[in-house]
Amino acid sequence: MDGVGLVETKTYTFAGAPEGFLLESEARLSPVSVAYETYGELNSDGDNAILICHALTGDAHVAGKHSPHDRIPGWWDEMIGPGRVFDTNRYYVVCSNVLGGCYGTTGPSSINPSTGRRYGMSFPVVTIRDMVRVQWELLRYLKVNRLVSVIGGSMGGMQALEWAVTYPDFMESAIPIATSGRLSAQGIAYNQVQRLAITQDPRWNNGDYYGAGGPDAGLALARMIGTITYKSDPSWTAKFGRTFSGKRSDYFKFDGRFEMENYLLYQGQKLVQRFDANTYLYLTKAMDLHDVGRGYESYEKALLRIRCKVLSVGISSDFLYPTPLQKELVQILRRANRDARYAELESPYGHDAFLIEFEKMSGVLSRFLSTL
Amino acid sequence: MDGVGLVETKTYTFAGAPEGFLLESEARLSPVSVAYETYGELNSDGDNAILICHALTGDAHVAGKHSPHDRIPGWWDEMIGPGRVFDTNRYYVVCSNVLGGCYGTTGPSSINPSTGRRYGMSFPVVTIRDMVRVQWELLRYLKVNRLVSVIGGSMGGMQALEWAVTYPDFMESAIPIATSGRLSAQGIAYNQVQRLAITQDPRWNNGDYYGAGGPDAGLALARMIGTITYKSDPSWTAKFGRTFSGKRSDYFKFDGRFEMENYLLYQGQKLVQRFDANTYLYLTKAMDLHDVGRGYESYEKALLRIRCKVLSVGISSDFLYPTPLQKELVQILRRANRDARYAELESPYGHDAFLIEFEKMSGVLSRFLSTL
Repeated sequence: MDGVGLVETKTYTFAGAPEGFLLESEARLSPVSVAYETYGELNSDGDNAILICHALTGDAHVAGKHSPHDRIPGWWDEMIGPGRVFDTNRYYVVCSNVLGGCYGTTGPSSINPSTGRRYGMSFPVVTIRDMVRVQWELLRYLKVNRLVSVIGGSMGGMQALEWAVTYPDFMESAIPIATSGRLSAQGIAYNQVQRLAITQDPRWNNGDYYGAGGPDAGLALARMIGTITYKSDPSWTAKFGRTFSGKRSDYFKFDGRFEMENYLLYQGQKLVQRFDANTYLYLTKAMDLHDVGRGYESYEKALLRIRCKVLSVGISSDFLYPTPLQKELVQILRRANRDARYAELESPYGHDAFLIEFEKMSGVLSRFLSTL
Repeated sequence: MDGVGLVETKTYTFAGAPEGFLLESEARLSPVSVAYETYGELNSDGDNAILICHALTGDAHVAGKHSPHDRIPGWWDEMIGPGRVFDTNRYYVVCSNVLGGCYGTTGPSSINPSTGRRYGMSFPVVTIRDMVRVQWELLRYLKVNRLVSVIGGSMGGMQALEWAVTYPDFMESAIPIATSGRLSAQGIAYNQVQRLAITQDPRWNNGDYYGAGGPDAGLALARMIGTITYKSDPSWTAKFGRTFSGKRSDYFKFDGRFEMENYLLYQGQKLVQRFDANTYLYLTKAMDLHDVGRGYESYEKALLRIRCKVLSVGISSDFLYPTPLQKELVQILRRANRDARYAELESPYGHDAFLIEFEKMSGVLSRFLSTL
């Protein structure tokens, strides 16, 4: 096995300041557990770390395998390992599951210690900034003093930007991919309809479904809607076109299906097997609230807190986070003489291209990392 | 009141050939009622008619008012009347509700005469071609011998193209707007998730909800999803941006809403007041099955049946039916020396621009009509 080999997910739990970890909403959580993985070795100065931030349904398992029997490795395995872009001979790579997540970090599906029951909808709303502050707690615990880079795509890119704004002296560079400093109205709209798909499922039961069969149909539908937005019109045409699935005699039946439909149904079912519906609600809500400018004089002023080098990566066919958003970030930063550059991934695969086009992504990232 | 003034919706009912009206699926329907409106006068040769075809949730009421108390006129009123683009001093303008619709034409919410109950999901799947063949029956009944033009946007444009392919000698021109000759995979995908939003609502009850409170939440969600796709990212940003609705103290509440969300909820509720959920299912299914090439040697060969002048109109910001689709139609036709031209509506309003940008639309259409 190439790459980082066998790895394991660990957990760091902390109580938070005297009365618990203070969230942006002013609610408090305690304790907070963070699931994380690390690859490579931290150097004695604690300054060779790279933090990778995952997207909506991702997890801390970004590289390697948990067991030799695993069919597939972590979600960005191709990028991480000896000699790979994030070279574990040089870097100490860290990835953690976000606050509000369902892969080991405290979230709505976690047990609320004060009731002994799962939080469900009593879980407080969390923000991208809260996620980042929890990651900071983790990095301090791991003795990381400084990051070479913080990187992520989509919701992961929101975290990368929030990192650079919140802790401007903590990193040498930030690489936000296919994202923006604040979610667009269209982004909010797509998240809203996905949440409604879940909350309108009667089995959601106001989030109190644990142990009782959850809102599978609603979560699957949410995922299907999301999946449409993660690719692009030309990529769907190339992959499925109008190919009809099944018997020709079913063509005029109401339940007859095109291959496109089968694929979305499959993607929906696949997510239901591995993801928690309330978590989907909370993480999309966190994305809606994403605005690095919140609490600062303006959006631009917040971005100008950034001191590190920035590589903002856009994807040519991304209509969920169109490239003008990534270019705008760079324009704002450059106008104030920050070291910011824009790179575009030419790809037909839409928003998801950063999870698909490993070769192109590696090229873009390694060119940038070589300048650090 | 300018324009066509007070108008009324009429109904034409026919039994269909001996055993009922034969559908593409080979199912038969009888009787078939068609709700329609006409404006202007048919000339003695019966050849000054213009047929306007409506989109998904439209109806036959395209111009004028049904009563002086109506708040708003028909859905394309600005285009129709004395001195307007479709000049009723010259043209006899016809618009009918599509087969499968819920505004007076036979559809799933109609009474099935053989059971005395509403069809619901026992209604046969209908296609765009079926809709067009019903319109043809109507025009024959109205003594129309030839159309000056057949025109429509979105699903209406599908009908316009199907008209030109099915009855190539019946019209002088066809004006398909923001559409294509066959629905794309992405189009199928968006329709599928909208149908699921309805069918996963328990109150849908397999389509048997009449008189019992229908799947309002599901239909509203379907409409919300659709509405996102009918505009454009920049138009949403311009209209709503990230403006939060309601009290600042609700910002971090799960139920806190952005203006974008309120707008979509409003659009969803508005449709529920006026549209039938099963009809939404059948008409989106008809769109999925739209392919003018079906039954012909190829898609291109089918298009080359077209003899009339074609103006294919694209909308610059339409991501549901992107402009390459409308350009491709023209390319195919021109390669075979058909009189086809492309016009682009420069607009930020996305797919819906043909229902919004009346002035620009009028310009494009009147330039074309003057060449006839």
